[in-house]
Amino acid sequence: MTERPEAPELTNPRAERVRSVARLSGRSARQRQGRFLVEGHGPVTELLAAAAAPAPRVRVAVEVLYVGPEADPAYAAAARAARVPVRTASDEVLAAMADAVTPQPVLAVAAPVDVELSAVLADSPRTLAVLARVRDPGNAGTVVRAADASGADAVVLTTESVDVHAPKTVRSSAGSLFHVPVVVDVPYADVVRACRAAGLATLATAADAATDLDDLLDAAATGQGPLAAPHAWLLGNEAWGLPEADAALADARVAVPIHGSAESLNLAMAATVCLYASARARRAVRHHGGDTRRRSPAAGT
Amino acid sequence: MTERPEAPELTNPRAERVRSVARLSGRSARQRQGRFLVEGHGPVTELLAAAAAPAPRVRVAVEVLYVGPEADPAYAAAARAARVPVRTASDEVLAAMADAVTPQPVLAVAAPVDVELSAVLADSPRTLAVLARVRDPGNAGTVVRAADASGADAVVLTTESVDVHAPKTVRSSAGSLFHVPVVVDVPYADVVRACRAAGLATLATAADAATDLDDLLDAAATGQGPLAAPHAWLLGNEAWGLPEADAALADARVAVPIHGSAESLNLAMAATVCLYASARARRAVRHHGGDTRRRSPAAGT
Repeated sequence: MTERPEAPELTNPRAERVRSVARLSGRSARQRQGRFLVEGHGPVTELLAAAAAPAPRVRVAVEVLYVGPEADPAYAAAARAARVPVRTASDEVLAAMADAVTPQPVLAVAAPVDVELSAVLADSPRTLAVLARVRDPGNAGTVVRAADASGADAVVLTTESVDVHAPKTVRSSAGSLFHVPVVVDVPYADVVRACRAAGLATLATAADAATDLDDLLDAAATGQGPLAAPHAWLLGNEAWGLPEADAALADARVAVPIHGSAESLNLAMAATVCLYASARARRAVRHHGGDTRRRSPAAGT
Repeated sequence: MTERPEAPELTNPRAERVRSVARLSGRSARQRQGRFLVEGHGPVTELLAAAAAPAPRVRVAVEVLYVGPEADPAYAAAARAARVPVRTASDEVLAAMADAVTPQPVLAVAAPVDVELSAVLADSPRTLAVLARVRDPGNAGTVVRAADASGADAVVLTTESVDVHAPKTVRSSAGSLFHVPVVVDVPYADVVRACRAAGLATLATAADAATDLDDLLDAAATGQGPLAAPHAWLLGNEAWGLPEADAALADARVAVPIHGSAESLNLAMAATVCLYASARARRAVRHHGGDTRRRSPAAGT
């Protein structure tokens, strides 16, 4: 009744094919091989769904799906629907290939598909999340997940940021990496310039800003202010935030309000609060009869 | 000019005093010894500030502060202000005592001070965060930090939750554990019952709820609905959420809106969004001329 063979095809954890996949835990091997690891139920399921979709928001090129002896046959079925080859592998082989400490019964290898900032901006985005020199892979993945959940249009990682295809980033994005376009490796100043030229207000998060998110939400409730129009959140590094010179390039500096005695929120939490404020503002503008979609681009600079 | 001795007092990482502190990384040792570790700049600074405050929101009993040879003299000064004894220790001793992989030059040992749910509820809270069987120490600490930042009044961890004094929880709370009262080890059903008796609406987060946070915020903008009045968020386990039977005990089931294709937010992100919605609602009620403080408790059940 099952189409899977009785014995796994791959049983030697020292085989070159296996070791080559295992090396994808490292950034240099990912760059050299031009492919990355996708591990576990959520990410693999979303990857295969994107690969099977006729017009996915995020285009992916999946090379192969490895399934363990105990894997749910639904994975192989999803792979077939996406025309992705399936190889069966022993648990030992899967453990050797995996980056995760607790290996999963499924693991895919995919090639990143570059998304250009110009293409994202040409698509009339209303909300972008820009990560400026963010270094922690878990934070970056969590922000991609928050961007997806909050309905943001894309995420941009500037140069000197973590590799968005690091295994931990892929895992912490929980599949959102295959829902939301992610642009990588654009210098920070170029991102700010391009956003402005495309008519997006640029909002730098800064703990000491005079304007806070409540002010912007109050304004958006009457269809006013930057949240009521297309905008990009500029989010700084987890340890040192946005340097003053970078924040100064933005149209506005905005604080996430701190109501208690905490010094701050961490990056992923602050990004989540900002991105949900954007969603709330888009809703307010819709109810207000407005339209947050850009109609005529500002003059380029 | 410095009051610190030239040579550290503690130099033997195998000394019983050092090993006894090292054991505090484990829950059973914390329970046996009745004390816990506080590591690193942020948590130690906030701990000492709470210990020195004449009327802190969170009472703490600090046993000792260990400082390394290179530690900023400000730590010892803060300890003296809080009447906390200071011991100097070699880097080797600090590394042996620490739980963190990258040891810090300061480490304190403190005794948890129990906070009773009845005392929290007697203080007319407007917003509580209840963690029901949350198991991940990082998530629990992050929620305590979000509760603090958003101005919530207290956090409650039900029985079968992670130990809030685990080193990773203390670290991820970033000092907020010493700002916000945390009640531990109360059975879930008892928390719900006590909140209701104290006049708080209980709001269970549930992905499939018909009511979402936007609905509640819309209502709160006109001074209506549960967010406009005292309420407790009931947040479930990171993997399986709130079991249906537990969610059914709440006054309302509420979804965090998912605008994109993400399946969900993680626990800490969902808690942050809910707690910031509460802050936003309290602000709306203030502007609306109302008062979210409970005036007359509901009849007990």
